[in-house]
Amino acid sequence: MNCEILSVGTEILLGDILNTDTQFVSSRLSALGINVFYHATVGDNPARLREHLEMSLSRSDMVIMTGGLGPTYDDLTKETAASVMGFELCEDAESLARIEAFFARMGRTMTPNNKKQAMQPKGGIIIRNDYGTAPGCAMVKNGKVCILLPGPPRELFPMFDEQVVPFLKTLSDETILSHTVKIFGMGESSVENKLKTLMEESKNPTLAPYAKTGEVELRVTAKAKNEAECEKLMAPMLEKVKAELGDVIYGIDVPSLETALVALAREKGKTVACAESCTGGLIAKRITDVSGSSDMFGFGMVTYANEAKMKLLGVAEQTLAQYGAVSEQTAKEMALGTLRVSGADIAVATTGIAGPTGGTDEKPVGLVYIAVADEKGVDCQRFVFGRGGNERALVRELAASNAINMLRKKLL
Amino acid sequence: MNCEILSVGTEILLGDILNTDTQFVSSRLSALGINVFYHATVGDNPARLREHLEMSLSRSDMVIMTGGLGPTYDDLTKETAASVMGFELCEDAESLARIEAFFARMGRTMTPNNKKQAMQPKGGIIIRNDYGTAPGCAMVKNGKVCILLPGPPRELFPMFDEQVVPFLKTLSDETILSHTVKIFGMGESSVENKLKTLMEESKNPTLAPYAKTGEVELRVTAKAKNEAECEKLMAPMLEKVKAELGDVIYGIDVPSLETALVALAREKGKTVACAESCTGGLIAKRITDVSGSSDMFGFGMVTYANEAKMKLLGVAEQTLAQYGAVSEQTAKEMALGTLRVSGADIAVATTGIAGPTGGTDEKPVGLVYIAVADEKGVDCQRFVFGRGGNERALVRELAASNAINMLRKKLL
Repeated sequence: MNCEILSVGTEILLGDILNTDTQFVSSRLSALGINVFYHATVGDNPARLREHLEMSLSRSDMVIMTGGLGPTYDDLTKETAASVMGFELCEDAESLARIEAFFARMGRTMTPNNKKQAMQPKGGIIIRNDYGTAPGCAMVKNGKVCILLPGPPRELFPMFDEQVVPFLKTLSDETILSHTVKIFGMGESSVENKLKTLMEESKNPTLAPYAKTGEVELRVTAKAKNEAECEKLMAPMLEKVKAELGDVIYGIDVPSLETALVALAREKGKTVACAESCTGGLIAKRITDVSGSSDMFGFGMVTYANEAKMKLLGVAEQTLAQYGAVSEQTAKEMALGTLRVSGADIAVATTGIAGPTGGTDEKPVGLVYIAVADEKGVDCQRFVFGRGGNERALVRELAASNAINMLRKKLL
Repeated sequence: MNCEILSVGTEILLGDILNTDTQFVSSRLSALGINVFYHATVGDNPARLREHLEMSLSRSDMVIMTGGLGPTYDDLTKETAASVMGFELCEDAESLARIEAFFARMGRTMTPNNKKQAMQPKGGIIIRNDYGTAPGCAMVKNGKVCILLPGPPRELFPMFDEQVVPFLKTLSDETILSHTVKIFGMGESSVENKLKTLMEESKNPTLAPYAKTGEVELRVTAKAKNEAECEKLMAPMLEKVKAELGDVIYGIDVPSLETALVALAREKGKTVACAESCTGGLIAKRITDVSGSSDMFGFGMVTYANEAKMKLLGVAEQTLAQYGAVSEQTAKEMALGTLRVSGADIAVATTGIAGPTGGTDEKPVGLVYIAVADEKGVDCQRFVFGRGGNERALVRELAASNAINMLRKKLL
């Protein structure tokens, strides 16, 4: 089955908003084994919208449209799509009741134009909106499928997972399932090299690597009659991958390195703390992004100034004078000081030059020392991130990721 | 002039990467007054690429293509576009020398297929790539323009600003210039209400508001023969807007609230410090995102645990027991403690319930207290962010923004 995604909204064409809906829907379709050959965006213009939709339906089996379901006069996706697909719009009592209830809950007054959002194609499938006022819908006719969803990602994402995915599964006899192996600390080419034979020989499940910032993801995908069969096909492949790659794998289907760290520390009943110079709060921010992190994280220190390193962490003035703030010695004293102050089981500390200024030949932009301490002692690693240009955000991101990974490895 | 943007890349269709190039190019074209009626993405498939490009050129004056300029056999954008536009590809000596120099600088070996990247349309305009190996190009024929740019945003963004924008300006007699007024602490409808008459009456310059997360942007745009004329048209409008809105304006053409804070503190020679509970490092992270922040920020404390609030900031055990960690009293003691420990001129502290769990009827998810202290005393504000659902990231982002804004207002 081939599908294309057609977004509607002048604000997308003006570059005012990023089209995250299209990426989200694409990744979900890809996981379901549905081919996507085209993405497109048109503005709130009924003539261009109609022309594009007619072309899309002529070359694809399915069109998923996002946006343009709002209450105002320029929101015309539903009217246009119903007309192209040959469906009549009628007021749907249940949709209207939901919209009225939504306004009541928010304590806002419903205006007459909100009634327009309760119009639904007669004979179509209603896609309920529990997150806003505009319901979506699906129309099926003459072997073509047209699905309409509201534009706001906080409405579209859960509606897609809860209602569209089950609907799409009914269109196919086959189930596609995948698992994502998350890897930190090994480059894409090394991963490919280690798994080359396995990748080339495997047809079902397939095995494919994707490079992300500082990370690699390996996607294992199986096709079978049902989910249990898919899992059965994938299990031996996952075991082989784990055996080959070892502890550079930080999780399977885990959203991020920090999620894996929080889960591991909670499981082991350990606490962590951090002291950050060049990362400036990013490690603490990423750990506390994870709900439940308060069980394993209580103390963070952002010691951007030398005075803060001395006062909060007890780094010796002599160390800073002799080796500099960006040095192995300072990083180690920061980590040991953090352990002492926080009483945590493990502490990590970063010090480096995020740039774009402040680099020298001896200590270039991108140089970062990361130290990890526990009751047994302290280790330090030296890194140079980026290519020496204006890559402040990248240097900080990679330094934080490595610090989080070093905490994770210490816990293993 | 009408333009459309055509992205090339199977990884975009699979949902593996977000199409940030298209948003970037769209916002630049919009600022130049060039209309964009369509966005589209096709995969690395020469037949579909050719068909789409022919259609795009038939309906638009200009097509900007991104991606597919890599060295491998499936990168076919340049070959396809040159053929459709009727240009011949020849090896360009300067492009080849740049690619060779790039490999030498990175200490990597150049492979024969990298030579393909030095092929350029004869009679076209070369768009130099100082950030990677694939140069772009522009082809102009029969009143149609086709511009090709490499996909990686860290190459495309600077190439566009440095070379494509000046080229596009040569295509028009008219100059369009805009300024963006950045507003924090007033909602979009209030801004519209205050400026309604001005917005409706103004044709050149125009005035348009855009809502962002917790912020509003007002774009003032003028058309004239040259930049000086544009500035002259915009100056009185900017004065009127400033007079009407006052200090909710944190800057003009400033990238973020934290950039404005860092500049203001440096200008006044003041230092700031922070103590963060619910924001967990986000305030420090956002301040240190800004290069040069080390002049005005030295100390940050992430006191996620009560023990940390007592030990690092001297919050009284009695205060925590009597009022709770999420209270005005605790926030104030945190801010005063931060001022004492850091020796900074101003300190801010946050404590709240980011969610999704931990809320009660009395203290719901989203409740945040933010206190600001200086030598004259301490103030505290109470906020409830989000709608009580699973909006942890939003609650944290809005709390950090308000904390940064409170620091800014204290400095004024």
